[in-house]
Amino acid sequence: MVRMTALHEAGRAPAGHAPVAALRVMGIDPGLMATGFGVLEARPGEVAVVDSGVISTAIGQALEARLNALHGAVHGIIEACKPSLVIVEDLYTEYKFPRTAVLMGHARGVIYLAARQLGVSVLALAPSEVKRAVTGNGSAGKAQMQRAVQTLLGLDGLPRPSHVADALGLAVTGMARLTGRLPAGRAPRRQGTR
Amino acid sequence: MVRMTALHEAGRAPAGHAPVAALRVMGIDPGLMATGFGVLEARPGEVAVVDSGVISTAIGQALEARLNALHGAVHGIIEACKPSLVIVEDLYTEYKFPRTAVLMGHARGVIYLAARQLGVSVLALAPSEVKRAVTGNGSAGKAQMQRAVQTLLGLDGLPRPSHVADALGLAVTGMARLTGRLPAGRAPRRQGTR
Repeated sequence: MVRMTALHEAGRAPAGHAPVAALRVMGIDPGLMATGFGVLEARPGEVAVVDSGVISTAIGQALEARLNALHGAVHGIIEACKPSLVIVEDLYTEYKFPRTAVLMGHARGVIYLAARQLGVSVLALAPSEVKRAVTGNGSAGKAQMQRAVQTLLGLDGLPRPSHVADALGLAVTGMARLTGRLPAGRAPRRQGTR
Repeated sequence: MVRMTALHEAGRAPAGHAPVAALRVMGIDPGLMATGFGVLEARPGEVAVVDSGVISTAIGQALEARLNALHGAVHGIIEACKPSLVIVEDLYTEYKFPRTAVLMGHARGVIYLAARQLGVSVLALAPSEVKRAVTGNGSAGKAQMQRAVQTLLGLDGLPRPSHVADALGLAVTGMARLTGRLPAGRAPRRQGTR
């Protein structure tokens, strides 16, 4: 089963009604248990979160059922939000937990497939590039990413779980590559309290 | 692009014209560069190879294009051959080349998805079980698997490349689980020359 959590209702736009010219970029942080996603749209003077959340699949289900649910959810979000580009994290050379990484590969595979089936290109960015672009620090931790994404996108709350922050960070970096600049951002309401 | 090689034309049956009662099992050895497959059918007194071969994807293509080609090919073969069950090798705990293993995971993911989309269950078998069932030796090498598969299925030639032998070995083991016995086999024409 798929559970989708829209974390940023305030920034949500009616899917499929964007003007043709609106540039949208979708970041995806693939995982079999939880895949984070975030869709950004470039608007005059700002970058808005169109949709974001987590796609979870039930641990008790057969692998093929979980992959089918994930594929269907990603396919549906791409179809609804119509991003010009999907951004994922590039593969590492080494993995601490190879078996978990191979399962992540299954999830990443059906995500690439969904993008391809809808004619959307996928760009893989190095984790260090994303961290540097978003936080200024190529080896930033998860909490630092969450705070920086909140600031850059002017979100009221910290993007949670960290999968969502990572997906939004990927989208921010992809958008910055395309537009040549990072979002302007605004100070979070209670900066420094976390 | 996808290149499919039918290695056992002699054993090939017109796809989609199998009697309803014919039990078919498909083994798949997933890989991004080369995915081996083999479809077996239980017939009175023998197990026949319905189809087998390798699905290759071009190394220069985008990952999403390669996965799309692989997904399409596997979907097509399952649709045409209508196996009751797809058998793949189970995941290891450790991998020597984690990055390659993660890419294999991408391939495995779209294969699971194709099976699910066509309503066919996937069974993952431990490599040691397959090797033991096919060769009698749980740690058999590739050449030993090729020879044993040739003998068990009464093939005129050695199944090549080894991906095909591994896929047929998975199918043989899955079929043996379902029917309770290994194929009867016949001696290869020039036993011992390889």
